[in-house]
Amino acid sequence: MHTYRLTIEYDGTEFRGWQAQKERPTVQQAIESALSVALRTQVRVVGSGRTDAGVHARGQVAHFRSRRSVDTHRLRGALDGLLPKAIAVIAVEAAVEGFHARFDAIRRAYAYQVATEARAIDRLARWRVHPPPDFEIMNAACEPLLGKHDFSAFCIARSETRNRVCAVHRAVWLPEDRAGDWRFVIEADRFLHGMVRAIVGTLVEVGRGRRAPDEVATVLASGDRRLAGPSAPALGLVLERVEYAASREPVAGADR
Amino acid sequence: MHTYRLTIEYDGTEFRGWQAQKERPTVQQAIESALSVALRTQVRVVGSGRTDAGVHARGQVAHFRSRRSVDTHRLRGALDGLLPKAIAVIAVEAAVEGFHARFDAIRRAYAYQVATEARAIDRLARWRVHPPPDFEIMNAACEPLLGKHDFSAFCIARSETRNRVCAVHRAVWLPEDRAGDWRFVIEADRFLHGMVRAIVGTLVEVGRGRRAPDEVATVLASGDRRLAGPSAPALGLVLERVEYAASREPVAGADR
Repeated sequence: MHTYRLTIEYDGTEFRGWQAQKERPTVQQAIESALSVALRTQVRVVGSGRTDAGVHARGQVAHFRSRRSVDTHRLRGALDGLLPKAIAVIAVEAAVEGFHARFDAIRRAYAYQVATEARAIDRLARWRVHPPPDFEIMNAACEPLLGKHDFSAFCIARSETRNRVCAVHRAVWLPEDRAGDWRFVIEADRFLHGMVRAIVGTLVEVGRGRRAPDEVATVLASGDRRLAGPSAPALGLVLERVEYAASREPVAGADR
Repeated sequence: MHTYRLTIEYDGTEFRGWQAQKERPTVQQAIESALSVALRTQVRVVGSGRTDAGVHARGQVAHFRSRRSVDTHRLRGALDGLLPKAIAVIAVEAAVEGFHARFDAIRRAYAYQVATEARAIDRLARWRVHPPPDFEIMNAACEPLLGKHDFSAFCIARSETRNRVCAVHRAVWLPEDRAGDWRFVIEADRFLHGMVRAIVGTLVEVGRGRRAPDEVATVLASGDRRLAGPSAPALGLVLERVEYAASREPVAGADR
C-alpha cells in the first residue's frame, strides 16, 4: 500500500467546510471526486482536521492510500484541471509508510485576518473591525493563552470532544504590509472546534475596551464558553500550516 | 462650489472597467449612483484614469463637485451601505479648490501580481505563471523602460492617444512574503492603454528564455506593438496609488 500526502489551499467561501456531508459541497468531497477521476478508482482522503464552513486554508494537509504507485507530478497536473478553481493542490508527495495526516500532526498554525478599514479585493478573507481596536493591548492580553490549558471556555458548546487540553505555542497580533491590516497568528498542538474564532472575538472586545485585558485569564480558567466573547466570523480564518515530526515528513525525492 | 476627493478600492472581477458604459456595470456608474442616492442629487465623478474590465484598484482617486458642503465622515458611512461589496471607499476628503483627479495627477503606481504556484484564495488578483520564469533576468530586462520614452510598442493598437511619451520612474519585480508570489511594481507620470499588461507579458517571455533580455530595448525603440509580447491577463493588475503635487493634496482637517 502506498500513501500520498497532499498540501492544499482553498477559498472556503463557497464550501460547507472540509468534512464530507451528504448533498452539500465540501472541500473533502471535491478532492475525493477529483482524485477518483484522476486515478480511476474510488479514493478516500483524510485531512489533518476539519475546518468550518467559510474557513480558508493555505496549507491543509491530507493523505490517501493507493494500491498502485502514483506518478505524483502527473497527478498534480491532473488535479489542476479537475478541481474547482477555489481549491488548489500545492503539492502531491509520496509519504512515509503509514503516514496519517491527522494522527501524525504535532502542530497546527492558524491566521485570523482583520482589516480596520473597508476592503474590496480582500473582503472574503478578512474581517473588518472598525473602529480599530488597540492591538497593543490585545497582544498583551494573549499572554495567558500560552502554554497547556483546558480551553473549554473557547470551544463551541455542542462539541463532543472530551479532552479539551491544548498546548498553545504562539499567539500574537502582527501588522501586515498594508496599513490597517493585521493578522492574529496562533499555533498549538491541537485546536478545539471554534477555538480560534472565540479567542479572536474575545480579544477584539478587549481591544475595544469592552473587557479588561486580565479577563482573558479569568474566562480561560472558568471553562465556561458563555463568559468568552462572540465568535469572530468564519471568513477571516485561515489554516496556514500543519507540522509533522521530521521522521514523518516525506523523504525528498521519494516521489520521483 | 465644493470639490471632494474619493480614494477607492475595488475588485474589478465583476465590472466592465472604470469608465461608465451604457447598460454594463462599471465602477464609475456604481459610485455615481451611490453618491446620487446619498446626496439626493445627480452626481458625476471623474477618476484619475480608466482601468480595463477585470483590473483592480487599491488606491483609485476620483473627484466630484457639489453646490452644498458635504459631511465627509457621514458620506463615507452612507457609501459603505450603498455600494456593492466589491467597491470600498477608503476615504472621502474635502479637496483643494478646483482639484481635478485626472489633470492634477502627477504620478501613478501599478502593481502586477503573479504566482508561480497554484493559488485558490488569491486566484482573482494574481496571474499564475508556471513554470516559474527567472525573475532576476526579468529585473535586469526592466532597465531600458526607465526614463522618458515613446511607449507605442506597449500600447494597444486601437488607442487614439496621440502623445505616447511616458516617464517611467520605477519598474521592478519584488518577491512577496509568500514563497512563489511576486509583484511587478511600475510607476510613471502616465500610462497608455494596455501598457502594463503588454510590458508584463513581454517580460515574462524574457524570464522564460523565449526572448533575449535586450529585446525589451529593441521593442521599445520600434514603436511597434506587434513586436512586444502578448498582454498579461487583466486579473493580475492593480492600480495601487495616484500621486498629486503637495499643493493639490487635501488640507489636513479641512473636512471637519
